[in-house]
Amino acid sequence: MRIIGIDPGLNITGYGVVELSSGGVKILEAGTVEPKRTDPFEARLFKIHHHITGILEAQKPDLVVLEKLYAHYKHPATAAVLGHARGVICLCAAQQKIKLVEHSVKRVRKALTGNGNATKIQIQDFVKRVLNIKSPGFRLDASDALALALGQAHMLRYKLT
Amino acid sequence: MRIIGIDPGLNITGYGVVELSSGGVKILEAGTVEPKRTDPFEARLFKIHHHITGILEAQKPDLVVLEKLYAHYKHPATAAVLGHARGVICLCAAQQKIKLVEHSVKRVRKALTGNGNATKIQIQDFVKRVLNIKSPGFRLDASDALALALGQAHMLRYKLT
Repeated sequence: MRIIGIDPGLNITGYGVVELSSGGVKILEAGTVEPKRTDPFEARLFKIHHHITGILEAQKPDLVVLEKLYAHYKHPATAAVLGHARGVICLCAAQQKIKLVEHSVKRVRKALTGNGNATKIQIQDFVKRVLNIKSPGFRLDASDALALALGQAHMLRYKLT
Repeated sequence: MRIIGIDPGLNITGYGVVELSSGGVKILEAGTVEPKRTDPFEARLFKIHHHITGILEAQKPDLVVLEKLYAHYKHPATAAVLGHARGVICLCAAQQKIKLVEHSVKRVRKALTGNGNATKIQIQDFVKRVLNIKSPGFRLDASDALALALGQAHMLRYKLT
C-alpha cells in the first residue's frame, strides 16, 4: 500500500510518499512545493495544485493523509488562508479519486512513538531513523508530511498484526 | 466587460454574471452550486470546482470578484472551512487565466447604494431593481454574488465617467 502525507501551506506545502509492505515501510519520495511569495495567492494555489496533481499521477498512492482541521488557530484569518491551500489539496485527491483520511497530530505522534505529546523534533528524529534518512538538510516541512504518511502506515500495520 | 461575482461556501456557492456596456449593466446568469451536505467535503469541493469551471468556460468573464477575507470570523474552524471553498474558486480563476479582484462588503455596498452600512436586504432589493429581476424566489446566495459583480461594474463605470 502506498501512502502520501501532505502538509498544506500557501508558502510551503510538504509531501512525503511511503510504501507499506510485508517487509516494512520505505520512503519513495519527499519534498516541498514552494510558490514564489511575491506571486498572488491564486497563482500560488495554481502551482500547488499543478505540482501535487503531478505527484499523485506519478506515485499513484492509495491514500492521502492530512492533518485534521482544528478549532484552536490563534488567528481566524490565518486559518482561512491555510484553508485555501488545504482545499486545493483535497480537490487534488478528489480529482484523482484517491481516498482522503485525516488524523490529529496527537494521534499521529502516538502511532509513531507511543507518546501523543512527543515534540516536533522528536518526531522528526523518529521519522529520519525509521526511514533511514541521512540527509542533515532534510526539510522540516517534508518531515511533517512524512510523519503523517508514516503514522498512517503504523496504524495500518498495528491493525494487521 | 463581463464580470462574475462568486460567494463561496461548502454548502452553497452563489455566482452571478453581469455584462457592463455603454448601455448599462445587464444580468447574464446567476445561480448556486449546492453539493449534497452528506457528501464528504472533498467531493463537495470537486463539485464546486467542476461547476464553476464550467460557468467560467461558458461565460468567459474578464473578472472574477470575491469578497475580501476578514479577520473577524467568530470561529477559526469556520474560517478554515470557508477557506477550502474559497481556495478552490481562486484556483478556478487562475486555471482559466481570469483576473481576480477582491472587495470588502462595505466597499461593494457603498459602490451600489452610496451607503457602506446598507443591510443585506437593502442590497438585495437594490440588485433586483437594477438588474430588473422579478422572481420572488430569487436566492439570497446568488444575490450576494450578483451584488459583488454589480458593485465591481459600478466601480468601473464610476471611474469611466
